[in-house]
Amino acid sequence: VRAVVAAGVGVVEVVDVPDPLIEEPTDAIVRVRLAGICGSDLHFFHGKAPVEPGGQLGHEAVGVVETVGRHVAGVRPGDRVVVAFHNACGACWFCRRGQTQLCENFRNLGSGAFGPGLGGAQAELLRVPNADTNLLRVPDGVDDERAVFVSDVLATAVYAVAIAGLEVGDTVAVVGAGPVGYCCALVAREAGAASVVVIDLDPARLDLLRSAGIDVVDANREDPESALAERTEGRGADVAIDAVGDPAAFASAAEVARRGGSVVVTGMYTSEEIELQLGVWWARAMSLRFTGVCPVHAWWDRAMAMVAEGRLDPTPLISHRLPLEDAAHGYELFAGRRATKVVLAP
Amino acid sequence: VRAVVAAGVGVVEVVDVPDPLIEEPTDAIVRVRLAGICGSDLHFFHGKAPVEPGGQLGHEAVGVVETVGRHVAGVRPGDRVVVAFHNACGACWFCRRGQTQLCENFRNLGSGAFGPGLGGAQAELLRVPNADTNLLRVPDGVDDERAVFVSDVLATAVYAVAIAGLEVGDTVAVVGAGPVGYCCALVAREAGAASVVVIDLDPARLDLLRSAGIDVVDANREDPESALAERTEGRGADVAIDAVGDPAAFASAAEVARRGGSVVVTGMYTSEEIELQLGVWWARAMSLRFTGVCPVHAWWDRAMAMVAEGRLDPTPLISHRLPLEDAAHGYELFAGRRATKVVLAP
Amino acid sequence: VRAVVAAGVGVVEVVDVPDPLIEEPTDAIVRVRLAGICGSDLHFFHGKAPVEPGGQLGHEAVGVVETVGRHVAGVRPGDRVVVAFHNACGACWFCRRGQTQLCENFRNLGSGAFGPGLGGAQAELLRVPNADTNLLRVPDGVDDERAVFVSDVLATAVYAVAIAGLEVGDTVAVVGAGPVGYCCALVAREAGAASVVVIDLDPARLDLLRSAGIDVVDANREDPESALAERTEGRGADVAIDAVGDPAAFASAAEVARRGGSVVVTGMYTSEEIELQLGVWWARAMSLRFTGVCPVHAWWDRAMAMVAEGRLDPTPLISHRLPLEDAAHGYELFAGRRATKVVLAP
Amino acid sequence: VRAVVAAGVGVVEVVDVPDPLIEEPTDAIVRVRLAGICGSDLHFFHGKAPVEPGGQLGHEAVGVVETVGRHVAGVRPGDRVVVAFHNACGACWFCRRGQTQLCENFRNLGSGAFGPGLGGAQAELLRVPNADTNLLRVPDGVDDERAVFVSDVLATAVYAVAIAGLEVGDTVAVVGAGPVGYCCALVAREAGAASVVVIDLDPARLDLLRSAGIDVVDANREDPESALAERTEGRGADVAIDAVGDPAAFASAAEVARRGGSVVVTGMYTSEEIELQLGVWWARAMSLRFTGVCPVHAWWDRAMAMVAEGRLDPTPLISHRLPLEDAAHGYELFAGRRATKVVLAP
Repeated sequence: VRAVVAAGVGVVEVVDVPDPLIEEPTDAIVRVRLAGICGSDLHFFHGKAPVEPGGQLGHEAVGVVETVGRHVAGVRPGDRVVVAFHNACGACWFCRRGQTQLCENFRNLGSGAFGPGLGGAQAELLRVPNADTNLLRVPDGVDDERAVFVSDVLATAVYAVAIAGLEVGDTVAVVGAGPVGYCCALVAREAGAASVVVIDLDPARLDLLRSAGIDVVDANREDPESALAERTEGRGADVAIDAVGDPAAFASAAEVARRGGSVVVTGMYTSEEIELQLGVWWARAMSLRFTGVCPVHAWWDRAMAMVAEGRLDPTPLISHRLPLEDAAHGYELFAGRRATKVVLAP
Repeated sequence: VRAVVAAGVGVVEVVDVPDPLIEEPTDAIVRVRLAGICGSDLHFFHGKAPVEPGGQLGHEAVGVVETVGRHVAGVRPGDRVVVAFHNACGACWFCRRGQTQLCENFRNLGSGAFGPGLGGAQAELLRVPNADTNLLRVPDGVDDERAVFVSDVLATAVYAVAIAGLEVGDTVAVVGAGPVGYCCALVAREAGAASVVVIDLDPARLDLLRSAGIDVVDANREDPESALAERTEGRGADVAIDAVGDPAAFASAAEVARRGGSVVVTGMYTSEEIELQLGVWWARAMSLRFTGVCPVHAWWDRAMAMVAEGRLDPTPLISHRLPLEDAAHGYELFAGRRATKVVLAP
Repeated sequence: VRAVVAAGVGVVEVVDVPDPLIEEPTDAIVRVRLAGICGSDLHFFHGKAPVEPGGQLGHEAVGVVETVGRHVAGVRPGDRVVVAFHNACGACWFCRRGQTQLCENFRNLGSGAFGPGLGGAQAELLRVPNADTNLLRVPDGVDDERAVFVSDVLATAVYAVAIAGLEVGDTVAVVGAGPVGYCCALVAREAGAASVVVIDLDPARLDLLRSAGIDVVDANREDPESALAERTEGRGADVAIDAVGDPAAFASAAEVARRGGSVVVTGMYTSEEIELQLGVWWARAMSLRFTGVCPVHAWWDRAMAMVAEGRLDPTPLISHRLPLEDAAHGYELFAGRRATKVVLAP
Repeated sequence: VRAVVAAGVGVVEVVDVPDPLIEEPTDAIVRVRLAGICGSDLHFFHGKAPVEPGGQLGHEAVGVVETVGRHVAGVRPGDRVVVAFHNACGACWFCRRGQTQLCENFRNLGSGAFGPGLGGAQAELLRVPNADTNLLRVPDGVDDERAVFVSDVLATAVYAVAIAGLEVGDTVAVVGAGPVGYCCALVAREAGAASVVVIDLDPARLDLLRSAGIDVVDANREDPESALAERTEGRGADVAIDAVGDPAAFASAAEVARRGGSVVVTGMYTSEEIELQLGVWWARAMSLRFTGVCPVHAWWDRAMAMVAEGRLDPTPLISHRLPLEDAAHGYELFAGRRATKVVLAP
């Protein structure tokens, strides 16, 4: 079958790989219908995260179950499913607490050393271990494009908003208008925020939010801290979400949050450091939560319910729909920030 | 000043009453701009709750502060304010926990024996004790009609939804399409419900919900339990709210809720009894919460934030806008179920 | 192997049954070291719940894993384990939410029609389906007598206290001084209650609590409502737990709870009915939660941690330690209320 | 009346000051029976925080109400009371949310520029504004020494543990064996922790904890991270509390906390900075909460209930009981770390 693989720094190729097979009776094989290119795929593309040449890529997928092992009970061949972007065992100490992102057997799809033994989602076929835990059926009314967001970005947004402790009537600031920020803003609005404000520097991305009816602040033209203060009688946001993963975004989230408020970091960090002024955070009685990788298994059916009922529509984020064979072009567009979201159809 | 008073069972009059005065330095006098007639006013109107002839009526009001006692710090003359429908001391054991509906000095406005020493909101002027606790400033962008709902019904809905333990993606059933049910439905939708279904027997009331984009079930034509089961793969509603206060409504809420779900009773009960099958409730692992009177002081700024930001609009409920002098007509309409909500302007 | 079976109303026998075998690769076979007789076993003993003659009994067990199917990852032969008293699939909609008591494939051990295909825990060997979900390893420092409580009663108490919404400093009333009430009292004390009061009519059972340092009320000699009022400046208990499962116990719990407080029903009900005065519950703003069967899988490691660290000791409840062959005698003692807790060693 | 005042860096004196008077009808005058010297008093003593020469000191007090203003309803002359260490208005946006530490009219007792217009608690008489909000009656069974801890340290511990999200069965690490750490350890144990471990370098302070039955780690002799790993199958503490307010303590708390765990900072910071490795905190999915000053008004009755019922005893912390006139000696002992806790009796 055809699959996207890493072929060196900044190069991906679509090549033939062996058909994945049922290895354990708890495995399923999924025929991919749509796969996303995600910001974290770029870490491998840019050589910042370890993947060997020939390593398969991609972790966001919706597809149809092709075959299942003898001990898969939850899905059957023919079921349309979303694949969890990271594979959890479902049985360890952390999984039993719903913290599947800390699974003792954590493996990420399509991510080299972080997913040993696993293929990638940008492929025609994909083996999914522990299928009962790592596949979620897609209701009939939800199309592939909506469903693919549930495998990662939208579940992440539901989780980030949940741990923020959002209450009805709160003001929420989201730093970053990329796919995660977009979804966080939509989820926060539906989850009780009286007002949601997204902060970014990219006018095109902000336009996308504006089209979705979300209030935006262009940080080139307006000071975010003042903008939030104006909207909150001087207090600042009850909840501020860093949906970027960059120290400047963190600083901005910290700055726009009110005293006694909550900062949630869902944008991915690796080796970044910042100076944290302990006295300021203490005097302001702040709360700071890091999502880490989303424990998608505990949150994705909530994300699915929201798209199924039409409460959220993430598809305006999709700027490019390409055949799988054009994956290289898709990576180029996305790496060059000329695409908001690229989806690949095998 | 002019005020609405009880004049016998089924009779109200607008009469002259003495001007209310500052009695304690923590009092404020409010010039009423708009007062609502509420379902619980009918208890007094119908003689089911104790009020002496001449007792003032009404507990929902928005107005402008006329004068304040020497020790009122939070509001000033000229401020437009909402008046808490029940007056709390703010200092007792229950108030300190935010359970102001259980205040040891609980007094309801305009409700005879339940509000000794207090006037009613359906009047030109109103004395408000403990003004710092019992008045909430109205932001400039919020008109009187929206604001008057914050004094009671809308805060009640925010509270009912909050204690339901609603999570993002849940299905919520609301039994009753009156003002409280209408507001509960709107709040539940904004607070994360993927789907909200309102059940009632009155087509006109259901139409009002339908116009607000809410899914409805006419219990004359469709079995509510089946209707909810269909929408939830057979499970039933995660949360069911009895917004009526009638044993049939309670039974309906219990019936449409899923196993392990939550039933919230916010409709007012007085002497009603039901048979509760303990084994059924136990086996289904249900949760049952009674709001009682809403602890409005702990929730009204959340309700106000939602109307201020345009997330909720309760005003389609207002079917009749009358001058205070026509209060008798308003009570007739409302008692005869020919009005959804009547507001009176002094 | 030898096993306890039902042999008619009020009669149990120890007989030879076929050795249980691995039927599915997710099964484990456990050699039982200690099994409890539980109050709910008496439902079968008394013929109130359906079990055919020859049906195996018992659902509380600690033992050692004898063999495991090919796809059991969490336990190995030789591991000492507690067996979940009800077997959950771990994969359905309810299991994914931690509500394993509502599992779509719910089967109770040793309970006839409620556990089709399953044996009972009062036996030498026991087959455990979905072993990764339904077995919990026992730390070395925890003896069998402590561990056997984790399979049911102690996890139930941890769950009941958790859903009560207990806060540090609260007063907790427990109605019923049997094993569940005893454990609820101990857990509540460790979970932040400033004061725990157990109410019962049986002086011997109350003495057991008194020996554990718990305050008691003998309802023969003292009015429970007054007793709680005295201890709480007249308010009543913040949390009241019905640990019996009898309408009189329910009434007592409702009576001793304060306004705005919480009543939790963990004692098992089947066909009992009560009159619920909706107006009283509404005016008092009460909360009422039914645990149903405990979702033991979500709570048992918390119970295990508490016994492992010596924070709780349920073993004073054990009044009789008998060999498995004396099961009939054990049932008689327990049914005749001459035993608090009987454990059987195969 | 006699009062302790700052007289230069490292110098305090007991001098005559004018009798405090009722200035507002919501004031009370309290005759102090016992006042504590707290770690934060040393900030003023050492000249790190701004207080003018002659400024009164002290913010922990228990006393008897001497006189009350006309509009004080909650306490009467003769009542024994604890005084809130910081004075809150009870009416602003933050106070209405229970975040009284962020009160818009925040004033700390005995702290110069941070408490304009207020006296200090280390004095014979003390004026307490907003007396209904800022005084808590002491039950008869609670002696002055226990009560004085409720005004600050013990309420702080209750709050720190509450926001940690502690669940029954958790392992809690407390960094710092001073008064705050001591109280946090005791509260955590009573609030459901299966195991509490206190980390410090000072053997004498650790001995005090050991005498209270708490497990300790002497960081001179044992690596805290390894010590916690050993006790938790390698995971680390579910909750780690920095009860010191020093970057090394913060680092230690972060280090002993498990992945997905919670770090709470209650030790006071002013201008300290640390390097925060965002990638590590993100990958570990951590939660970080800063208490700031404790919102004592929302938590002190829980602390009081715990001492009233004998669940907690903070008095072993008191190493020195001195007359008010010996305050200078008390400050010296405490500043020189020769005292754990000093209380002064006027």
